[in-house]
Amino acid sequence: MQRVKGWFKASFEKISSAVASVGNEGKRLAKEDLRRVVHAFKVGLAIAAISLLYYFDFFFDGFGVNAMWAVMTVVVVFEFSVGATLGKGVNRALATLLGGALGVGTHDLASLAPEKVEVILIGVSVCIIAATATFCRFFPNIRARYDYGFLVFILTFSLISVSGYRDDVVFDMAYRRLTTILIGGCVAILICIFVRPVWAGKDLHRHTAANIEKLACYLEAFGRVYFQESYDKNLAQLKDFKSVLISKGTEDSLVNFARWEPRHGKFRYRHPWNQYLKIGSGTRECAYKIDALNCYLVSDVQTPLELRTKIQDFCTKISSECALALTDVAIGLRTMTCPVASEKHIAEAKAAGKTLKALLKTGLWHDTEFLDIVPVVTVASLLIEIVACTTKIADSVEVLAT
Amino acid sequence: MQRVKGWFKASFEKISSAVASVGNEGKRLAKEDLRRVVHAFKVGLAIAAISLLYYFDFFFDGFGVNAMWAVMTVVVVFEFSVGATLGKGVNRALATLLGGALGVGTHDLASLAPEKVEVILIGVSVCIIAATATFCRFFPNIRARYDYGFLVFILTFSLISVSGYRDDVVFDMAYRRLTTILIGGCVAILICIFVRPVWAGKDLHRHTAANIEKLACYLEAFGRVYFQESYDKNLAQLKDFKSVLISKGTEDSLVNFARWEPRHGKFRYRHPWNQYLKIGSGTRECAYKIDALNCYLVSDVQTPLELRTKIQDFCTKISSECALALTDVAIGLRTMTCPVASEKHIAEAKAAGKTLKALLKTGLWHDTEFLDIVPVVTVASLLIEIVACTTKIADSVEVLAT
Repeated sequence: MQRVKGWFKASFEKISSAVASVGNEGKRLAKEDLRRVVHAFKVGLAIAAISLLYYFDFFFDGFGVNAMWAVMTVVVVFEFSVGATLGKGVNRALATLLGGALGVGTHDLASLAPEKVEVILIGVSVCIIAATATFCRFFPNIRARYDYGFLVFILTFSLISVSGYRDDVVFDMAYRRLTTILIGGCVAILICIFVRPVWAGKDLHRHTAANIEKLACYLEAFGRVYFQESYDKNLAQLKDFKSVLISKGTEDSLVNFARWEPRHGKFRYRHPWNQYLKIGSGTRECAYKIDALNCYLVSDVQTPLELRTKIQDFCTKISSECALALTDVAIGLRTMTCPVASEKHIAEAKAAGKTLKALLKTGLWHDTEFLDIVPVVTVASLLIEIVACTTKIADSVEVLAT
Repeated sequence: MQRVKGWFKASFEKISSAVASVGNEGKRLAKEDLRRVVHAFKVGLAIAAISLLYYFDFFFDGFGVNAMWAVMTVVVVFEFSVGATLGKGVNRALATLLGGALGVGTHDLASLAPEKVEVILIGVSVCIIAATATFCRFFPNIRARYDYGFLVFILTFSLISVSGYRDDVVFDMAYRRLTTILIGGCVAILICIFVRPVWAGKDLHRHTAANIEKLACYLEAFGRVYFQESYDKNLAQLKDFKSVLISKGTEDSLVNFARWEPRHGKFRYRHPWNQYLKIGSGTRECAYKIDALNCYLVSDVQTPLELRTKIQDFCTKISSECALALTDVAIGLRTMTCPVASEKHIAEAKAAGKTLKALLKTGLWHDTEFLDIVPVVTVASLLIEIVACTTKIADSVEVLAT
């Protein structure tokens, strides 16, 4: 009896701790981005709204069981950002139209033949068209923007032409499917756009600016800590840049979504989204350099402080000027204005770099172990390369501003 | 008349050149990986097979219009690799079961109330449950493996409970939906597994080995060309490693798919797939170092050859030994045997690194511009760091072999 009690108590505790950890994770996710909670309720609202339509007679009488396509469309099409929702909605509508038309055509053609032949004809044409469309999904351009459309095309085409076995009014079915999907798509898109919209374009914009700020943040901290005797290697400011190294996937998908979005806020319909990919690749290139720089910061073998201090002034100058320039560029990007101060900071960084180079040439360090000097000089030359990267980022942001 | 003719001719040429370029791209895609063509025909075959079932009376009479769920399931579930198909199929089946059960329960509970209240009850519960499930999709663990399941859950739950407005035999509908989805899912999975299967696990395995080989290939070429007076900077061998830098996304999704796969070839069901993520991150780390090394190779400012040749022997030794070790590790990974020769090569590379370090300490270069020496020394120290990375990769592959 005691053991059974103990077992129950233990499992109860286990379950409650699991529930608590899920709750905490949920809280964290909601806190990190409140729009997630809003999105969840928007989806709930859209489904409830479309299911009310299902309830009203004038809607149901027209469409019958096909009305469920409206519910399905809302669930499948509703994505986090407006761009993703629009992309899926347009893909779904166009693909249903095309697939339905081709399906009706195939069915009409096949039904001219005797029944046994009709079955074979439909089977063969479904197989060939589905295979062709599936192969098309491997084309990189199609994969990026129209993958979902091709899927729905295969789906609609197969459904409509196969239904011909059972029902001779496939045209009616195709028409109803298209109409209900349009209604569902419109509900999803309208709620997505008009209830607290999440714009992929804005997100991309912020993401790009935030990545540049992470680099600025690192450089600012680097100039401060590298010339201290001892420092905290686990400083948060020195780790944030790592996420920039693997940001390519996020950027690519945000650009794809942003292309679907209409004019919003400060963004035109044909905003040059591709430029963000260029800025992103420049930012990543700079992040690779910073990663190399970081190795010298976290390395266990530290260069003697007195060697480091000899170039302290110029290195600190370069890294802080680059940090200021990048911050200015990021602010310019955020506010969509031409960055004003960045040019000055870059010029100062370049000047400091030049002087530093000259200083190195004079042979600053006499009577020191040659190998001790190398890391310091490498740090210096990496900083000089980072100035070039900063210039590149600033230039590509400027293209966007003009 | 002439102008109209010219216009027709011009547009005809434009269209035919577009068609030709699409054809060429298709040929290239097919040549690159013939499994794509096979996959396309497998999908066509599966859809044709399921549509035959639609044609036979005993199947259609049992399920009626619900039979279309079978066609839909085949189209939606059939993915390129077995793991992805199995993952989607299991997700879809379980989610339909759960969503259907909850939908029937909600409908039964709500129908106890008077009609007006029933509508509100169902609407509110659909809204709340859909919102909760949508929020759950933001949990990273769920997103990685069960995202599609949650989508289908919302879908089935809404469809079944909303159908209650129209039809009091929702249980029947839920049952038919589940059965047809099971049939469709089974057809898709069986064809996917038994007709020329594409295993995500095998792909991941090959992808990991190929990435290691790309690094080996670079190092092999580096030791050869860096000490020549002039060399071709656009050598293909020196560019392949770039794709390793951005390979994280591919790896993550392949690992997720591989987890779903049953025992196949040399892989057990619970093969330690996570270890591949570790190998991958080690490989990427090494690729970052190689990227830094590459800067010195493609840089416009070349160090005088006579400075480079002073450390030629050791640098060539290190890079070729590392290349041999990595090649051996990749072969060991491919054949799933413990790499035998890599330890010897790594030991030789380490020894060469040690001697190189000692050599640098002696101050090889007298009377030379200090700044000219720095790039050479940095190259040397990067190579020494690459030895450490190689050791790390070899160790993590060894864990897999044991």
